Order: sequence, then structure tokens, then C-alpha cells
Amino acid sequence: MSDQRILVTYLTQAKDLHKKAAAIAVGMTVGSWTDLPAAKQAELAPYLGEAVSATPLETLENGETRGLITVSYPTRNFTHDIPSLLTGIFGKLSMDGKIKLVDITFPESFLQAFPGPKFGIDGLRGRLDAQNRPLLMSIFKSCLGLPFEDLKTQFRAQALGGVDLVKDDEIFFADDRAPFLERIRAFKEIAQETEAQTGKPVLYAANLTGPINELNEKAKRAVEAGADCLLFNVLAFGFDALHRLAADPDVNIPIMAHPALAGAYYPSPDYGIATPLLLGTLMRIAGADLVLFPSPYGNVALDKTEALQLATNLTTPLEGVRRSFPVPSAGIHPGLVPQLYADFGLDQIVNAGGGIHGHPGGATAGAKAFVDAIAAVTAGHTLGEAANQSPELAAALEKWGGAR
Amino acid sequence: MSDQRILVTYLTQAKDLHKKAAAIAVGMTVGSWTDLPAAKQAELAPYLGEAVSATPLETLENGETRGLITVSYPTRNFTHDIPSLLTGIFGKLSMDGKIKLVDITFPESFLQAFPGPKFGIDGLRGRLDAQNRPLLMSIFKSCLGLPFEDLKTQFRAQALGGVDLVKDDEIFFADDRAPFLERIRAFKEIAQETEAQTGKPVLYAANLTGPINELNEKAKRAVEAGADCLLFNVLAFGFDALHRLAADPDVNIPIMAHPALAGAYYPSPDYGIATPLLLGTLMRIAGADLVLFPSPYGNVALDKTEALQLATNLTTPLEGVRRSFPVPSAGIHPGLVPQLYADFGLDQIVNAGGGIHGHPGGATAGAKAFVDAIAAVTAGHTLGEAANQSPELAAALEKWGGAR
Repeated sequence: MSDQRILVTYLTQAKDLHKKAAAIAVGMTVGSWTDLPAAKQAELAPYLGEAVSATPLETLENGETRGLITVSYPTRNFTHDIPSLLTGIFGKLSMDGKIKLVDITFPESFLQAFPGPKFGIDGLRGRLDAQNRPLLMSIFKSCLGLPFEDLKTQFRAQALGGVDLVKDDEIFFADDRAPFLERIRAFKEIAQETEAQTGKPVLYAANLTGPINELNEKAKRAVEAGADCLLFNVLAFGFDALHRLAADPDVNIPIMAHPALAGAYYPSPDYGIATPLLLGTLMRIAGADLVLFPSPYGNVALDKTEALQLATNLTTPLEGVRRSFPVPSAGIHPGLVPQLYADFGLDQIVNAGGGIHGHPGGATAGAKAFVDAIAAVTAGHTLGEAANQSPELAAALEKWGGAR
Repeated sequence: MSDQRILVTYLTQAKDLHKKAAAIAVGMTVGSWTDLPAAKQAELAPYLGEAVSATPLETLENGETRGLITVSYPTRNFTHDIPSLLTGIFGKLSMDGKIKLVDITFPESFLQAFPGPKFGIDGLRGRLDAQNRPLLMSIFKSCLGLPFEDLKTQFRAQALGGVDLVKDDEIFFADDRAPFLERIRAFKEIAQETEAQTGKPVLYAANLTGPINELNEKAKRAVEAGADCLLFNVLAFGFDALHRLAADPDVNIPIMAHPALAGAYYPSPDYGIATPLLLGTLMRIAGADLVLFPSPYGNVALDKTEALQLATNLTTPLEGVRRSFPVPSAGIHPGLVPQLYADFGLDQIVNAGGGIHGHPGGATAGAKAFVDAIAAVTAGHTLGEAANQSPELAAALEKWGGAR
């Protein structure tokens, strides 16, 4: 095996950042170094981490320096899965004072062992025959406790408005009133009816839940029942569960990663895992075709630089790994479409819940307002121009405001 | 189904804490409430969360109050697993500003659906025939990259010193030089040899790794190979993987939970999941027989109140759920045993790496020093008294210090 290495960048603080990087390089690999006899050093050298760089950012009041450090790890230290990777580069280190895991760069040989998205941006565009525009997704207003008929009504209303995808609420686990496989079959029928009316296909993302050692079987039963897409709470189940679903040739439908619980990791400046890595790079290599993440708009928004870097990590060329669709979510209404387009470009999914269901004309009109906003912005028109032709868009702009 | 409820406590800040609790109670369950028609309210009421209490702790400079809020959720909102639970009480909420998940109280009916530890404190004491003392565990100095023979030598040295358990290094995934099942068989043989010499059994905890949908099968193969115990990186693989191992009747050996990655969740005062819940309650109900966590001693220690609460959560009576062994780890040397005993009592495992391998007389003498320290403290003697009879303990106290 050639000596290929994984580069890991941490944000931390220390009296001497380079010394800290060197200590991590030893402590997270062979455990000790300078006290080893020469023969043992020769034997363990192929497993030894290495301090690569230290970049000071600021001097703190206590005299320590806060900054970025990069450590390289031999790929041979890991099995080809995210539990091995995260345990090996951040397991006990995460408990060792102020340190945040911010970035990982992989050699191609290591990446090839991961499934990556089965469909990715291009595959999903192909399935929907929707090339040169952002896609549009709608979320059920709520799912928990609702009678099946209410969900069918909600699904139909959203589909008739022309959305590309409809997703379950991510908290929808206890679904005895509208069971998983029955939902998939029922919404498939409705989607065929609405497509006959509108000419537009709509994909339904059903929330995959259950015992972790039965998920692949359950996903296959979903495929057999005609499922279009799976919603999956990746952080609640663990990255390896996504990996094994994406690697399963029989689970041949796109997987949509929900960011539930991500806020337990990313918001602190001192601890955790940065969003561009957590919801970007790791979700992509583990196989998410679409990744939801907090939008940089609204009250409790994700930092914009982080959100843009996250989207870049999902879409930038990466040897042999397909691109994942960024889905900036929360606080999205039709008036925000020009801003979304300016920030995230063509390859994104516009995702709305309240911005569709809260439309004065109902969910179908709410979806239509988004469809018209996306068409306008993609064609280089203003929302004001489009609203002249679209009473639904005009009503949305009246309610929520936004660049005309 | 009776209306049993799960009580969830968060640490957060708001202008009005009770209003925030009420908003969470709706937002994390049925989504909206006041705008629903009366018939819909009647239908969804059984799924509605409720604000239970708000306890102010301090007034912040921005005029907001920081404090604890408790929200109750109907058990019917969840399937009986931790992904459903965490997604339902903290999924999107974790991304909604400053909020930390600090405690959960379960009704008995919900607890019964979780496996809990198969052996727990009493079961493990029975297997080791070690009743009225803390147990002693030793960690390999390092595992990664070492030839099998080196690991055998390390195992034998630790076992001869009289430890109750020896565990793998948690980063030991890439084990081609000493494969999992071969290690289990080889160390079993050595354990039988050392038991013949010392009269004391020693259990080996092998690091369970691999694809998540194959873990139960791999664990069964380990049991067939004679495994005594499994080490498991619960947070890297997800709580549900532990749950399914613990619930599997064929995996009839204790499971030791490693806290790797826990520091990505708990250290921030504003975000994440508090350790007593993360490494205490959740590990226990999911089925960990032993739980490692950062000790409250040393440089980068866990806050002592948190560490003690964590141990309490592992050992306090809980309807139908066995007690898990607390294993406060890092920075442990024989001189700390009186402190450990005063803090964590009889039902703990004293766990040392450097404090055993770094002994001037080597690992066997290092383990012997701990054995003698534990025997002394349990019998009500001082370490100074015991050191008169134990040159190994005397040497350890000389090197590391500690209460004589």
C-alpha cells in the first residue's frame, strides 16, 4: 500500500499550535513516539500521524493562540467507513479541551471505498426531466397523528402546484395511522393522477425508520412498493447506516439526508464538527443524493459563509464521487428565490413548508407561486415582472415581501 | 394507550422561558395549534406536547432569561428507539439557537421497550466473582500497527498483574496484523494460562467494528470464538446499533460503551447534549453494561458535578433496567484510588492506561499497584499503610504521588 494520507484540519487553541498538532499526530495514532526504541519506531512509522501546518488566527487573553492546525493520517490507520474515520481523528480528541473538527481532505484511493450518491444532481434531474432550473420541494405541513386521508389531501394539493418533490416530516416515526409502505403506494397513485393533469412528475420522499439492522431490508420493501426517494435522519442513525443504504444495489432510489440533530454538533465556535464537513463532505461521501441544511436566512440562520461552503462541498468536483443537491431550508418564501439563486445558483433545491402551506390561496397556489418565481429568476426576469402574469406569486409577495 | 408522557428538560434562553417551552411543545409535535379548527384540535390533542415548567437561572445582558424548561411529550409520538426519540425532541430544535438537551425522564412503559444492560453491575460481578470492591480495568498501551506478538505480550503482562478486564484501544479498526476473531481466541488462551497462575479471571473487551448492518452477525461470531466482552464506539455507530446488539439474545456477553466523539456534543454551555444524559441515561437504556467517560481529574477533566450525575444516572434504581458500571477514565494512577472511591463508591471500574504501563516496574507491577490500592481503600486502610506491604504500590506513589 502506498503511503496515502488523509489531511484533517482542526480549530483549536494552545500556547504553541504546532506543538499541539504534533502531539495530536502521535496521540491519535501510535500513542507514544520519542520514548520508543528505534526498532519499534521503524515498525510503527507507517502508522504515525504528522503535523502538517499551524495557522494562527488570534492571540487570546490567556496568552494562547487560537488557530487552525492540520494533521495528516495514513489511510492504513482506518477501515473504509465513517465510524473508523471519526473515531480515529476525533474520538478521544473531541474530549480534550477546546477543539473543533473543521475539514478533511481525502486521497482518491480512500474516497473510492465510499459509495457516494447513487444518483446525485445529474441523476435526479434526469428522473424529473428538469434540467436548467433549481428544483422545488415541499414539506407536509405536519404528519404526526394525522389521518391518512388528510395526508393524501395534503400530498395532492402540493403535487398539483407543480413541486418536484414532497417530503415527510422528519419526526414521522410513529406512523400507525398512515404506515410507511401504504403511504408510498397511496402517494404513488396520487402522483400518477396529478402528473396526468399537470404533465409534471412528483417524487415522494418517505421517512425511513426502524431498527438499524433492518433498515436495508425495509428500504428494499419500499423500493418494491414503488418508492421514489427516501428521507433519512442520518445523524440520528449514524453515517454508516447511510453508507450501507447507498452501497446497497437494491436500494436504487435517491436518499435525502435530513440534518436533524446537527445543531448538537456545529454551532459552538470551540467544540463539535463544522457544518461544511458534517452536512457537506461526510453526507456526500456516505451517499446522500440530497442534503437539507439550515438556510442562511431568517432568525436562527446558519452563518452564510458556512452555508455556502457546505453547498460547495456538496457540489465541487471530487474524484469519482457524484454531486449532491444542496437544499437550504427554513424561512423560505417565494420572495427569497432571487436571493437563493444568487447565493446557491442553479444546482439547488428550493424547499418550503410554511412558504407553501401558508399561501393565502392554499398549498397548490403556494407551490405555483414558487414555480413561477423559479421560472422568472432562471429566465432573468424580476419577480415583479413575473407577478404580473401570476396572481399566485403576486399574493405571495404581498404576504411575505421580497425583491420585485 | 394511556396518555403516558416523556419529560424533557432543556437549558436555553429567551425573553419568556415559558412561552419558549410552549412554542417547542407545539413546534416539535403537531406543528401548529392556535390556528387549527376545533375538530382538528380534538383529533391532534393526544399528540400535542405540553410546557411543564420554566426555571430561570440568570438574567442576561440582552434582557433574555437563561434557564431550564421542561416539555412533556406523549409516548405515542415515538417508536421505541433512540433515533425516534432524539429526532422528535431535539432534531430540528437543536438548530434553533442556543439550546442544550439536558435530561429526559421516561415512564416505565417506554423504558420497558428498551433492552437495558444484559448483565449490568451485578451480572459482571458474578462473572468475575468480585463482589465487594471496585473492579480494575487496563487498556492496551496502543494497538494500531503492532505485531500480534506484541499485543499478546501486553495482554499477558496486564493479566498477570491481576486486572479484571483488559480493553482494546478504541481506534483499533484496521486490525489486519491481529484480526478481531484471532485476537479473541489468542487472548482467551492467555487468560486461561494467567488464571491458572493467579487464580483470577480476566475478561478481554474486543473492539467491535465493521459495517453497521453486519455488526450483530460479527458480534455472534465473536461470542462463538469465546469473546468475554465487546468494546463499542456507540456515538460513532449510533445508539440504535448498541440497542440492537443488547437486544440480541445471541450476543450474550457484556457490552462496554466507549465515549469517543462525546466531546462533539457536551462541552458547550449553550449547545449539544449534557453528559449525564448522553453517556448516562441513554447509554444505559440502550444496553451498555459498562460506560467509560472522562474522569473529573486532570487537565481536561469533565466537570465534577456532571461526572457524578452521570454515574448516578447509570446506577440509580430505574424500573426494570439493570445498573451499568461507571468507568471514569483518563489521568488515573494508584494514588487517585482513595479519591475515586470517595467520589464514585464501590460500584465503579478503576480504569488505567498510562497509570499501569508507565509503572517503573512495568505493566504487571503497575496493575499490582492498583490491585493493592483498591484492596487497601476498600478495607479502610490508607495507601501509606498498604504501601508498606506492597513495593509496587510504593513505587507508584513515589512516581505519581497521591494520598498516603
